[in-house]
Amino acid sequence: VVLQVTGKSIYGEDLYRPGMLYAVALYSAHAHARIVSIDISGALEAPGVVDVITAADVPFNRYGFTHQDQPVLAEDRVRYLGDALAVVAATELKAAREAVKRIKVQYEALPSVHHPLAAMDPGATAVHGDSNVAGHFTINRGDVDRGFASADIVIEESYATPKVEHCHLEPHVALAELEPDGKVVIWSSTSRPFAYAGHLGKVLKLPMTAFQIKTPAVGGGFGGKNRIVMEPWVALLAMRTGRPVKMTYTREEEFFASTVRHGYTMEYRTGLMKDGAIVARQVKIISDSGAYADQGETTLKKAAVHAAGPYNIPNIRVEAYLVYTNNIVGGAMRGFGVPQVCFACESHMDSLAARIGMDPAQFRLKNLFGEEAVIATGQRISSGPMRRTLEKALATAGPLEESSPGKRKGRGMACMFYPSGSTAQANPTAGVIKVSHDGTATVFVGAVDEGQGSNTVLAQIVAEELGIPFESVRMVTADTELTPYDAGTGASRVTYVAGNALKKAAARARAILAEAAAQLLGVDDTALITARNGRVFLSSDPGRFVEVAQAAWHSERVMGRPVVVTDSYNPSTTDFEEITGSGTPFEAYNFATQVADVEVDTETGEVDMNRVVAVHDCGRAINPMLVEGQVQGGVVMGMGYALTEEIWEERESGRVLNDSFTDYLVPIAANTPGRIDVVMLEEEVAKGPFGAKGVGEPTTLPTAPAVTNAIFAAVGVRIYDLPANPEKVLANLRARHKDD
Amino acid sequence: VVLQVTGKSIYGEDLYRPGMLYAVALYSAHAHARIVSIDISGALEAPGVVDVITAADVPFNRYGFTHQDQPVLAEDRVRYLGDALAVVAATELKAAREAVKRIKVQYEALPSVHHPLAAMDPGATAVHGDSNVAGHFTINRGDVDRGFASADIVIEESYATPKVEHCHLEPHVALAELEPDGKVVIWSSTSRPFAYAGHLGKVLKLPMTAFQIKTPAVGGGFGGKNRIVMEPWVALLAMRTGRPVKMTYTREEEFFASTVRHGYTMEYRTGLMKDGAIVARQVKIISDSGAYADQGETTLKKAAVHAAGPYNIPNIRVEAYLVYTNNIVGGAMRGFGVPQVCFACESHMDSLAARIGMDPAQFRLKNLFGEEAVIATGQRISSGPMRRTLEKALATAGPLEESSPGKRKGRGMACMFYPSGSTAQANPTAGVIKVSHDGTATVFVGAVDEGQGSNTVLAQIVAEELGIPFESVRMVTADTELTPYDAGTGASRVTYVAGNALKKAAARARAILAEAAAQLLGVDDTALITARNGRVFLSSDPGRFVEVAQAAWHSERVMGRPVVVTDSYNPSTTDFEEITGSGTPFEAYNFATQVADVEVDTETGEVDMNRVVAVHDCGRAINPMLVEGQVQGGVVMGMGYALTEEIWEERESGRVLNDSFTDYLVPIAANTPGRIDVVMLEEEVAKGPFGAKGVGEPTTLPTAPAVTNAIFAAVGVRIYDLPANPEKVLANLRARHKDD
Repeated sequence: VVLQVTGKSIYGEDLYRPGMLYAVALYSAHAHARIVSIDISGALEAPGVVDVITAADVPFNRYGFTHQDQPVLAEDRVRYLGDALAVVAATELKAAREAVKRIKVQYEALPSVHHPLAAMDPGATAVHGDSNVAGHFTINRGDVDRGFASADIVIEESYATPKVEHCHLEPHVALAELEPDGKVVIWSSTSRPFAYAGHLGKVLKLPMTAFQIKTPAVGGGFGGKNRIVMEPWVALLAMRTGRPVKMTYTREEEFFASTVRHGYTMEYRTGLMKDGAIVARQVKIISDSGAYADQGETTLKKAAVHAAGPYNIPNIRVEAYLVYTNNIVGGAMRGFGVPQVCFACESHMDSLAARIGMDPAQFRLKNLFGEEAVIATGQRISSGPMRRTLEKALATAGPLEESSPGKRKGRGMACMFYPSGSTAQANPTAGVIKVSHDGTATVFVGAVDEGQGSNTVLAQIVAEELGIPFESVRMVTADTELTPYDAGTGASRVTYVAGNALKKAAARARAILAEAAAQLLGVDDTALITARNGRVFLSSDPGRFVEVAQAAWHSERVMGRPVVVTDSYNPSTTDFEEITGSGTPFEAYNFATQVADVEVDTETGEVDMNRVVAVHDCGRAINPMLVEGQVQGGVVMGMGYALTEEIWEERESGRVLNDSFTDYLVPIAANTPGRIDVVMLEEEVAKGPFGAKGVGEPTTLPTAPAVTNAIFAAVGVRIYDLPANPEKVLANLRARHKDD
Repeated sequence: VVLQVTGKSIYGEDLYRPGMLYAVALYSAHAHARIVSIDISGALEAPGVVDVITAADVPFNRYGFTHQDQPVLAEDRVRYLGDALAVVAATELKAAREAVKRIKVQYEALPSVHHPLAAMDPGATAVHGDSNVAGHFTINRGDVDRGFASADIVIEESYATPKVEHCHLEPHVALAELEPDGKVVIWSSTSRPFAYAGHLGKVLKLPMTAFQIKTPAVGGGFGGKNRIVMEPWVALLAMRTGRPVKMTYTREEEFFASTVRHGYTMEYRTGLMKDGAIVARQVKIISDSGAYADQGETTLKKAAVHAAGPYNIPNIRVEAYLVYTNNIVGGAMRGFGVPQVCFACESHMDSLAARIGMDPAQFRLKNLFGEEAVIATGQRISSGPMRRTLEKALATAGPLEESSPGKRKGRGMACMFYPSGSTAQANPTAGVIKVSHDGTATVFVGAVDEGQGSNTVLAQIVAEELGIPFESVRMVTADTELTPYDAGTGASRVTYVAGNALKKAAARARAILAEAAAQLLGVDDTALITARNGRVFLSSDPGRFVEVAQAAWHSERVMGRPVVVTDSYNPSTTDFEEITGSGTPFEAYNFATQVADVEVDTETGEVDMNRVVAVHDCGRAINPMLVEGQVQGGVVMGMGYALTEEIWEERESGRVLNDSFTDYLVPIAANTPGRIDVVMLEEEVAKGPFGAKGVGEPTTLPTAPAVTNAIFAAVGVRIYDLPANPEKVLANLRARHKDD
């Protein structure tokens, strides 16, 4: 962290190697076309050009998380404007850019499809195979039809969310270089080095250990650095030329060639009793996957699990569809499908409360998870903190302040539940810890610190368990050769999963140190020995101690047993059952409520976010400052989702029209909320390391619906599709006045 | 290995960093003097100079293995011509060399002492403290005085060995560079990275983990790269300047500033019965330590343990003295004190046989270790192969060929025993093994491959134990941050100790793979499962198998248990008892006999080595080609020791007069023995990995005495001090003719 704030961190773009080449890609000129021919001869002859690759040079031109539908370089067909056809490597970046223009491609244009509903039409142009339905997933709990039949009131609404970009400040970057033995070292700005090595191995037809994926400092990810992009290109070019090859995405490429958060359309239908009890809920989700499936299916499953919200609903049906289009590709992004359904569900809840004339908080409390709850998949979970986040949020918020002149103030709220760890699959982390005889620990763990501070948290966990100062822990992380397997940074899993793995390993190391200390202290029973502040001592008599360094030295140099240990952790989950979608997709869940106070300018439609109260159950906060930072960042990201962010795709081509920070409005420091009250509800979770859970993604989930609910409270305008930008708010205000 | 023969290995001298500085040291002009003042101002102003350090810049200016007597840079006194006083860092090597000349040192000369016997005189000038006796070590077995009293004959002889240089083709080299977080990375051509980190931490007053010692390819060591030399200098300069700093020793510095093999003078007194049975042996060893103790004490202990030779002698006394002089410093070198005593003991044995008129082989067999033996320290050892190496060597040698005209042919022999592992102290190695889901293993081990091929052998051991192809093993070695503790490459310990550690770890990994395979194959009992050739299968039905890759994937991705394991090995030894020198200094011993056929030119005194038969007990030869290479190399090194190698020190100053390969005659390819018959006596040792023992050092021990014994057999000249160069042989021949 000190390195980051003092500017000493070495990011991917800082890497330089003598003789390094620069790579630039040529992208499709069509949203959908057959490739008739590619002529690279002009580029090869261009000044400074050393190599050009096309699909013909890719050993196995197919990859993907679930669908294996994506080529490394487009072969016979382009499916969206982000499909790359060729990559040039030249001695200068400028030369590579110029050379790309000399590549001649002959296309045969095909009809393209850009709206997911249209794409689902049986007669629609197929992006892949016969049907554009790339995935279909159902969850059934109880009997939703009988539930609706028994309801006093049934209300149905539709919501939609836009595609948004991750906007990690550091774009994707990778540098590939060959070692003398032929190993390809790839420095990549990634969140999932092991997944990258697996995918690289597949497409380049080599064992994954033919590659060493290393991470320099990573300047943000938010799920956007989850899958290979330029890595196979630079690897291939380095292997062909024998020279280091580097590529950095432009901001434009971040928008049109890498993934974005999926746009969802969501139909919510809820059956209520007159007292406000929800008896049935049906949700239909349609996700625009774009040209490839990427993580569309896994995000959709996570969305489906959480779609009905943190409410006791006996009868639930969720139906989710992933649909191919010729658009930009949706992928993992902070919240992994749940920001979309959280917006829809919590707006819908607010709307239901209004329709039946109940206070939104009371309506939620009526249905909210209690100490225990059964979620849509049938899993019984501990959910005690859920209600307390809502109660705490309301208590913290206090009375709403008066509006400024010409503006209307309103308060909204939203609840959420969200898990730590990946969906219904083994997602282990293993760690190795070495205690040197200077009393320091070196930790080997595959997790990536993307800037969120996970290295700090993991080092704290090891220090605490080993009883040594935080400064005595050195982290070696995120390197597919040097660190053991880790499922990647994502799914708010690092503190929980990697933290547990390292806590277990540290306990093993402590046991070895205790044996050495017992010998030095003349004690038989190591159970009597504990460690803290760099000392290993008798619990009953802290004056009898040895330094951790002495114990480590004694173990290594006298007993002949160097202190090096390993352990791993994997949340216990089960996969979904085929028909019902039942299962235990996650081991531990987080809960949160956010309350937003906004002020709407009824003249301009502009919404000021005066204040957000964010109450998050994070288990034990290992590092409260980092948790607070996560919440602040999550709220600001949620604010962008609520009010300004939206990728504009040209209707006929899917072309991104606002592919820069000039036109795409991500919140900047100047327009963050006036005040963010972060409240950590520290209720320790039994299985978490020191009671901790992950907190990264949940922080952004409730913000957007809290804001739009606050807009409704302020001016009576219900926003059904994000963002609630001034044009939309104003148009709704005017429409509402017309109605009046 | 492929990298070495194709020239792709990156050695220290190949390392280059942008902005790198070059360091050059200023050495003492006196063998012994007080330093009155050092003026570096002229050097600091010289072109290209960035920094100059002296003793004043060293945080803690004392280090050493046992004596803590050596300064990083001489402070108030210089004790030999190899003491450095200042180090210059400049942008060019030439500039640094020029600048060194501008440093002005005022000395006050002190009397110096250069002969160890003179140095032992109570009135001698003291190099350190009051006495020049830096160490004294005794072993007593039985009652040596009573033994001599009971003997029919008592014979006493004196032997001496010269100082010789390691002559690793790659000189010492180190490059230090700072990481952004302040860690100092030092690429060093060392055999013992962990010892380096410890010493660096001490002299720079930082935790050892403030440094990361990494090894590039190492071009030979032979014990010469066992202790820090320029590492503290380049580290300090890098920390001060913030720039990478590199230093490479010149060949001259290798001779006068780094360590050499100690010169020993040895008195052997043996009591015999008429039938040839040895009843008592007394050995007195005096070792010239030079200006510092370095590893003089530990080498002397190893020499003392082996001084009486592999013979059943009921009464033994060994007295050994380490003596400071103002000479070049003795240190570790292949054989660690034992080449000296092996030469003396085996020459003495030959001489005894001649004096009592017995055949040298018969005399040895009369006294040689049997299936079991008790060595001088009282340790009972398994020694079955000892006799068989002698018998096999004689059988292999066959009849001696006829001499060429004008030359006289003779055959000599020598036996030896020598252990695998360090002397009487914990010397563990720990390893970490990770099995990736492509079925490959990555091995983390601290041992250094100095060119002898230990990485190959260790990879073979892991491959065999895991049941995967050799090509599927990747080695990450010799890095104080990335690999767990290892006591260093030396003491012929790597195959035995590191091999055992990795074999144990690999067995753990195999057990995890077996659990995964059992689940996949539907088998309950993992004991029924074995692994070979990349497959994990049912022992009873090899057709029922899964690939190691599948098992690893299943364990990691389905069972959630990434395959990463650790284990360690430490030979069980005890320290010497204070008075008697009793103890179990080593766990496993090797045995060997070499027979040399030489031809002596009686006109010139030149000795041709026609043939060596080298029979070495190496346990199971993991890699026979590497064992054969070790034996060939050891024999050639022994040939240099026997015939040509000797550092000439100027009597009044200790100045090395032959500090180049022009004047110092190390054998080159053109004058290796005419024929070397390598015979591996593969008797598996119970505790060795797959029955293997170390073989590196033993190979060179018997060569010199076998050669000098052959000279005696040829021309009746006994060589009491090495080398048997033509001048010495001729002078002896002439003296003998005069006597006749």
